[in-house]
Amino acid sequence: MRVITFGEIMLRLAPEGYSRFIQAASYGATYGGGEANVAVSLAGFGIDAAFVTKLPKHEIGQGAVNSLREFGVDTSLIVRGGERVGIYFLEKGASQRPSKVIYDRAHSAIAAASEADFDWDRVFTGSTWFHFTGITPALSDNAAAICMAACKAARSKGLTVSCDLNYRANLWTREKAGNVMGSLMEYVDICIANEEDAYDVFGIKASGSDVTSGKISHDGYKEVAAALIKRFNFKKTAITLRESFSANDNNWGAMLCTGDDCYFSRKYAVHIVDRVGGGDSFGAGLIYAALQGMPEQEGLEFAVAASCLKHTIEGDFNFVSTDEVKKLAAGNASGRVQR
Amino acid sequence: MRVITFGEIMLRLAPEGYSRFIQAASYGATYGGGEANVAVSLAGFGIDAAFVTKLPKHEIGQGAVNSLREFGVDTSLIVRGGERVGIYFLEKGASQRPSKVIYDRAHSAIAAASEADFDWDRVFTGSTWFHFTGITPALSDNAAAICMAACKAARSKGLTVSCDLNYRANLWTREKAGNVMGSLMEYVDICIANEEDAYDVFGIKASGSDVTSGKISHDGYKEVAAALIKRFNFKKTAITLRESFSANDNNWGAMLCTGDDCYFSRKYAVHIVDRVGGGDSFGAGLIYAALQGMPEQEGLEFAVAASCLKHTIEGDFNFVSTDEVKKLAAGNASGRVQR
Amino acid sequence: MRVITFGEIMLRLAPEGYSRFIQAASYGATYGGGEANVAVSLAGFGIDAAFVTKLPKHEIGQGAVNSLREFGVDTSLIVRGGERVGIYFLEKGASQRPSKVIYDRAHSAIAAASEADFDWDRVFTGSTWFHFTGITPALSDNAAAICMAACKAARSKGLTVSCDLNYRANLWTREKAGNVMGSLMEYVDICIANEEDAYDVFGIKASGSDVTSGKISHDGYKEVAAALIKRFNFKKTAITLRESFSANDNNWGAMLCTGDDCYFSRKYAVHIVDRVGGGDSFGAGLIYAALQGMPEQEGLEFAVAASCLKHTIEGDFNFVSTDEVKKLAAGNASGRVQR
Amino acid sequence: MRVITFGEIMLRLAPEGYSRFIQAASYGATYGGGEANVAVSLAGFGIDAAFVTKLPKHEIGQGAVNSLREFGVDTSLIVRGGERVGIYFLEKGASQRPSKVIYDRAHSAIAAASEADFDWDRVFTGSTWFHFTGITPALSDNAAAICMAACKAARSKGLTVSCDLNYRANLWTREKAGNVMGSLMEYVDICIANEEDAYDVFGIKASGSDVTSGKISHDGYKEVAAALIKRFNFKKTAITLRESFSANDNNWGAMLCTGDDCYFSRKYAVHIVDRVGGGDSFGAGLIYAALQGMPEQEGLEFAVAASCLKHTIEGDFNFVSTDEVKKLAAGNASGRVQR
Amino acid sequence: MRVITFGEIMLRLAPEGYSRFIQAASYGATYGGGEANVAVSLAGFGIDAAFVTKLPKHEIGQGAVNSLREFGVDTSLIVRGGERVGIYFLEKGASQRPSKVIYDRAHSAIAAASEADFDWDRVFTGSTWFHFTGITPALSDNAAAICMAACKAARSKGLTVSCDLNYRANLWTREKAGNVMGSLMEYVDICIANEEDAYDVFGIKASGSDVTSGKISHDGYKEVAAALIKRFNFKKTAITLRESFSANDNNWGAMLCTGDDCYFSRKYAVHIVDRVGGGDSFGAGLIYAALQGMPEQEGLEFAVAASCLKHTIEGDFNFVSTDEVKKLAAGNASGRVQR
Amino acid sequence: MRVITFGEIMLRLAPEGYSRFIQAASYGATYGGGEANVAVSLAGFGIDAAFVTKLPKHEIGQGAVNSLREFGVDTSLIVRGGERVGIYFLEKGASQRPSKVIYDRAHSAIAAASEADFDWDRVFTGSTWFHFTGITPALSDNAAAICMAACKAARSKGLTVSCDLNYRANLWTREKAGNVMGSLMEYVDICIANEEDAYDVFGIKASGSDVTSGKISHDGYKEVAAALIKRFNFKKTAITLRESFSANDNNWGAMLCTGDDCYFSRKYAVHIVDRVGGGDSFGAGLIYAALQGMPEQEGLEFAVAASCLKHTIEGDFNFVSTDEVKKLAAGNASGRVQR
Repeated sequence: MRVITFGEIMLRLAPEGYSRFIQAASYGATYGGGEANVAVSLAGFGIDAAFVTKLPKHEIGQGAVNSLREFGVDTSLIVRGGERVGIYFLEKGASQRPSKVIYDRAHSAIAAASEADFDWDRVFTGSTWFHFTGITPALSDNAAAICMAACKAARSKGLTVSCDLNYRANLWTREKAGNVMGSLMEYVDICIANEEDAYDVFGIKASGSDVTSGKISHDGYKEVAAALIKRFNFKKTAITLRESFSANDNNWGAMLCTGDDCYFSRKYAVHIVDRVGGGDSFGAGLIYAALQGMPEQEGLEFAVAASCLKHTIEGDFNFVSTDEVKKLAAGNASGRVQR
Repeated sequence: MRVITFGEIMLRLAPEGYSRFIQAASYGATYGGGEANVAVSLAGFGIDAAFVTKLPKHEIGQGAVNSLREFGVDTSLIVRGGERVGIYFLEKGASQRPSKVIYDRAHSAIAAASEADFDWDRVFTGSTWFHFTGITPALSDNAAAICMAACKAARSKGLTVSCDLNYRANLWTREKAGNVMGSLMEYVDICIANEEDAYDVFGIKASGSDVTSGKISHDGYKEVAAALIKRFNFKKTAITLRESFSANDNNWGAMLCTGDDCYFSRKYAVHIVDRVGGGDSFGAGLIYAALQGMPEQEGLEFAVAASCLKHTIEGDFNFVSTDEVKKLAAGNASGRVQR
Repeated sequence: MRVITFGEIMLRLAPEGYSRFIQAASYGATYGGGEANVAVSLAGFGIDAAFVTKLPKHEIGQGAVNSLREFGVDTSLIVRGGERVGIYFLEKGASQRPSKVIYDRAHSAIAAASEADFDWDRVFTGSTWFHFTGITPALSDNAAAICMAACKAARSKGLTVSCDLNYRANLWTREKAGNVMGSLMEYVDICIANEEDAYDVFGIKASGSDVTSGKISHDGYKEVAAALIKRFNFKKTAITLRESFSANDNNWGAMLCTGDDCYFSRKYAVHIVDRVGGGDSFGAGLIYAALQGMPEQEGLEFAVAASCLKHTIEGDFNFVSTDEVKKLAAGNASGRVQR
Repeated sequence: MRVITFGEIMLRLAPEGYSRFIQAASYGATYGGGEANVAVSLAGFGIDAAFVTKLPKHEIGQGAVNSLREFGVDTSLIVRGGERVGIYFLEKGASQRPSKVIYDRAHSAIAAASEADFDWDRVFTGSTWFHFTGITPALSDNAAAICMAACKAARSKGLTVSCDLNYRANLWTREKAGNVMGSLMEYVDICIANEEDAYDVFGIKASGSDVTSGKISHDGYKEVAAALIKRFNFKKTAITLRESFSANDNNWGAMLCTGDDCYFSRKYAVHIVDRVGGGDSFGAGLIYAALQGMPEQEGLEFAVAASCLKHTIEGDFNFVSTDEVKKLAAGNASGRVQR
Repeated sequence: MRVITFGEIMLRLAPEGYSRFIQAASYGATYGGGEANVAVSLAGFGIDAAFVTKLPKHEIGQGAVNSLREFGVDTSLIVRGGERVGIYFLEKGASQRPSKVIYDRAHSAIAAASEADFDWDRVFTGSTWFHFTGITPALSDNAAAICMAACKAARSKGLTVSCDLNYRANLWTREKAGNVMGSLMEYVDICIANEEDAYDVFGIKASGSDVTSGKISHDGYKEVAAALIKRFNFKKTAITLRESFSANDNNWGAMLCTGDDCYFSRKYAVHIVDRVGGGDSFGAGLIYAALQGMPEQEGLEFAVAASCLKHTIEGDFNFVSTDEVKKLAAGNASGRVQR
Repeated sequence: MRVITFGEIMLRLAPEGYSRFIQAASYGATYGGGEANVAVSLAGFGIDAAFVTKLPKHEIGQGAVNSLREFGVDTSLIVRGGERVGIYFLEKGASQRPSKVIYDRAHSAIAAASEADFDWDRVFTGSTWFHFTGITPALSDNAAAICMAACKAARSKGLTVSCDLNYRANLWTREKAGNVMGSLMEYVDICIANEEDAYDVFGIKASGSDVTSGKISHDGYKEVAAALIKRFNFKKTAITLRESFSANDNNWGAMLCTGDDCYFSRKYAVHIVDRVGGGDSFGAGLIYAALQGMPEQEGLEFAVAASCLKHTIEGDFNFVSTDEVKKLAAGNASGRVQR
């Protein structure tokens, strides 16, 4: 059971604590990005996970490789070359002040890569699962073309393909996103989205929902899932359900729909340490659950518990063991000291 | 539209995080003080704001100047000389443990300054607004005399004068405060106070209020505002309304009364990062709103939203843009990531 | 009034903030351990408190001595020798993720000490109170024997003896704990326990309680206290009552039973900074109250307020003054800034 | 006396201490760049100095503005717009290991700026001096064109123009540098270079010098200066003379030639804290000396002493007062504590 | 070409900068140990290097694994189990104050491991080289037995075996070291030692040397090497030559003798950042040179240049590329900035 | 053998590393002062040492007490009261840039103390030695009077009195220093001075010396010592001899003269970590040597070796053991790692 994820890994530069950007005298430096985050989660669960991207040969690129290796991800398929590593600056919000992201990712090695950089047949040999997100095709037309090539190769090799829609308004328009993602969906088996993505990318809206106010209607989301499945013929669609009361306090849960049934997870009241990567950790949990053959409800609870824990961990990556996730999914949420 | 604020800027020394003083191996070093905080807020809103004080020529004094320049305050009117920069040590509270301030500000350059140090006619030329707080006259008899000279000059030059009562029990007695502040109020157009100041300085009490317990009666505060306006003939009086549940969690709002009407703002449940300077950021918001000619309710909401955000920012200074304030005032308090 | 506490003081290594162990590039280094924590609390309250243990002569051992001296504990009775200082690694939990402790304390100087290392008659000369916890006899058979020697000497010298049961599952089995602690209880006057200890050590269970779920029945705990008093003839038994909603938010209170009466404290909703040492700070508060001759209810409130404040302080040690504790016990929990 | 400098200011990201890039868990964040460094030096000497560039409106761009304002530089001429702030990563070398710079400055706002962004007639009104370096025209063809426009405007307005050749091999080839810089030199009055620049840019070589080995021949450098003056008709040429024994220890001095005479400065054995910006601080010293009308030898010694001190200061900027520089230039190099 | 190294990897806890142990409020946490250091160096040179040891399953053990993976070492052969990770505390010396190491490594997982934990035939399959040091057999009798088993298996599989004598006086006596190491030497092809090891372990002394005073006689070391080769029939013996002027400044070089010839390297005057691991980086350089088939003198210069650079890098590990090493070995030691 | 030292202990605020004041975002916070430094050194050597001063009751005052207790100094004689703790800001110099001290010590509790605060008969009961420096009488007229009272009491109780002249130009004039110190010298047995003090305080000058240039003539200093002894009838005079090449590199040695003989110590070339407190650590070494009855040359070498090591330690305090000092005094200055 080998999982391939493909996308961009960025240098993440975040001021310490709740410092605003203009107060920062230094930046904590870690690495992260949607698909890389999924690979790290899976490696932490004991899955053979490889991340595919393109990274410059210099030390900032090497730092990204090392960070993945450190947490057990296979980096042997990463192509080395190009000019720069994408960067994102992250300012952590508090209470009524939202977190803020400044992207400096244009012209990165992966955004400037060409189709010829990747030999997908070789990459997918021996693999069972391919995962990407809607961020990667948004990086550049080249990146979108590479995604398409990867999807086709994955389909032809018989891999399960999952995609997290992950709409990013500052990377492309809804219109372009709809077109590009629409054609990629043909090759996708399992679709993951947050409560806004389906609308942003495909114009599919949950009736009765108002994301900003934190109101979420279960029936509305069932509609959305049903519409997605109907349009793209997905085997499963999962939607994460976040109710945002403040930058510190959110409710977190998710829904999973197969064609026939919809499952809703327990809902966690989370006091947030770092919510970036929350969706990615959910996706990884779902992939893990599928690979382990967990029943739908159990798998969904695993994924939600894993991503609940992500919110308590600094950085993009989710450092939790399957033991920790299972304990929480089993109901132990009291936070008592483990000695 | 140029605003002059006058007072003391101190070196603020605060242990990191929730460390108590006796655990501190280092102190974060920033600068702050009531009127300086107002100037920084205004500069951040795009207003031409100058801060007047006296500071030693050495590097600790220069650090205060640089800190103001960094955030866009005009420091060209600052008088250089004197022996020391006032210091305050700040220990951040948590839960049931209150924050603690140790003042080491006696003998500072501004407390020891003389009237001859300041040429108020020159200072106020080309200015529209003068702001000071009740801390400055409390520093020393000299400082009180300088305040009086400034108020008279401001009045004669036709500036609007605002004052934040800001009673500090460790700087003077209620009796002395009442006398000195009473005579200064003659020159004040707009009076700002927190829920305790009116009583501490002038013996005016909100009936039915118990500040420590966090109970606040709207009608009681209307009484207080009416009494202030009546006694000192203010054009407006604003009172900030804090309900303190713990060192981490407060409710925050405010009231604004003109002679005729009283307006109450929305109330925010704030999870606190740093509440020092909260009142100053409210005052700055109020001044900004007045300079922009906002209607009273809108101006009050702007000021409260600005100061709500201050509670999420480390240090005395409020680093927020008018965009951020207006978004919050418009109701977007969900704290969702801004990408 | 001189208090002797005996046990192990460890080097505590904790990643900064909410960093997980595998993210840690450095560890904050402090010292702590149940009985040392009690001694530091008492010294901070102005009591003559001495801590007895064995520590290596090298600098890591000296660091432990210095840390105790810094906060006013008499270290002149500490025996120097042995190979290593026990270590515990502490990862701070958040929200649904529990705090985690990794012990590396086997083979420490005190675990490997011999009875001959301590001359209890000399130690107890001029002392009024002896305190230890259930951790110390769990360290090794030697340590248990030293405890027994200390208890006998304390009894024969007429000291009051208090013990905090403090069961640690990774140091010994319930069966062994029951046997060893059972024979030590003969010499104990005042027994302190948390809501789980009585069951873990002696199989005494509160009916209707479910610790993990945070449900606590007052009557159930009265039963437990009565059973403990009956079996071991204690003068008093105190039980701390923690309701754990998450790693960040707990309710905290306690109960004190003499043979005749049971007292329940106020309950505090605590937003946690560091909960390690919470029980120890309660024990210290109780000892202080007894030494001062406070009435039972007042003493209990003092102990609970002291330990409530401990939860807001980083490290094992509780740095609070009797003034601060008394203010909180008197009802001032609003966390307003003290200037 | 007002000095305008024009160029790029970058975000400088440097691991702490001697950490290599791949060890870095955080980066110290300051700002710097050749011409910005000169402006900061001059502002610190009390000169009215303005820096011209283009910077994005977001907070990383604002941080650059704030950093300049903090140290007294006039930032009112900076154009706001564009996508990104150039970045350079700096790894500090030690002993035989050289410092290492990774540039991530392509596509910065200033590199992508257009001629229409700058109104040089307005910029130069009221100014006496214009300074730029060879880095700016190397950024892009656009930037080179803007430089040319600035030079022409400066000449026509009668400003003195100084240029530091500052060849950067990773920005352009020697050939292109020679062409572009050659045509700009027509407008330059004072040329500053290090011991390699004249050769790298114009193929002019000091006979008998071997830079890498640290051997420098005085006569050889006189030849170089004479050749530069002859070819470009400079009023003065200054060459900094660095002998590099290791990343920690350098000798530092300089030579100044007018058409008629050459002056050599004292030579300092420097134990390095941070040598980036050393050349810029020399240039600033030279400009200051010229503006003050110092005799050539005295001015050269001032510039060398200023830049000697720069090597002891972290960051690109040189934080020294004219007093400190003059004391060192006067011979007090013993480093005794100043109380 | 696959290299196997075997030994202990410890948690290294070092106060920041030049802080003494008793001043430390935190410890920088990295991992290191003789043979692990060699593996990291080799992986950094692009060699397939695997490190064999035993480490507990908990997070401190996992941290050691992650640290090795991060830098490219194959950790798949590491046995997981046992109680604790060995620790060493390191205080960095300065000037006349020496660095100080406190070992807390007794009872570590590898010291307590058994022969059955390692299947050397499997480990060595596909490998070309085996490296260990004199520290490993010093850990415990078990560890010595495992070393012997490894040596025998390596010999029978035809691997080249190298050993760094690395005498540690606090782990065993010279007598025991002599016996145990003597019997292991039978299987060793290449012996590496510092200027004291040959005497400490085997009583072989360089005539005319006085290590403490920094005096080293070339002829004396030739004698030592000849004696070692004669007694144990080594193919090569290499001796590192350190002249210690202070904790900051050392000369560093080495000698390599085959049976027939002795080669001496260039000597570097090193300004030290961190000298721990200096010998290991030399050993790795020598192994790399041998695997690449470099001539003796060139290989020796490579190894010495690599280890010279190690002295400029914090931590046990040597983060240098073959490019960097070769540049230095080629004579570029000026430490000029690489842009 | 109990030693009493009397003077001021200040809060020392120093930017990290080589940061200049105006770059500092935080200050490392330790405590120090001439006589406190001597007490800490002596306690570290195992001597019963008590420090006498006056300190405010607040936490900054308590921090000073705790810092002394931590390192074994008896603080039971410290008087609590007064307003503020003296502060000094310290910027560490490098190479040609000198270290810089900004004093903010006026109005401190000890400067404002009265004679009635100290009961010297009680203080000196059971003591053998009294030490103070020329800084204390310079603080204020009150402080000078307290010094005189202490000296008289010490003489009448038969204690040995030592004084370090320690002239501070920013605290008083040479003239006032000469008068006040002159009358105190009547009670002093052992006089310690640096190479400038004798001239600054008493106008006694070494012929042929030029301190700034680093030139020191042995014969000149003998003259100075002889003149001091003759004028004040000292039993011994010791003069520290510093040759300052840069802020990083000094030579350090000392001379000791009895009436009859002069002894010169070995001279150390020191690479400086922190030179503040160097003279104090020398004084402590001399007192220790006298208390132990060491011969003059041996005692002088002990004191110089102790203070040589001080230069390698951050902060005012000298953390060295007698073992470490003796090893260095015996000639082991190679700085080799101690494992």
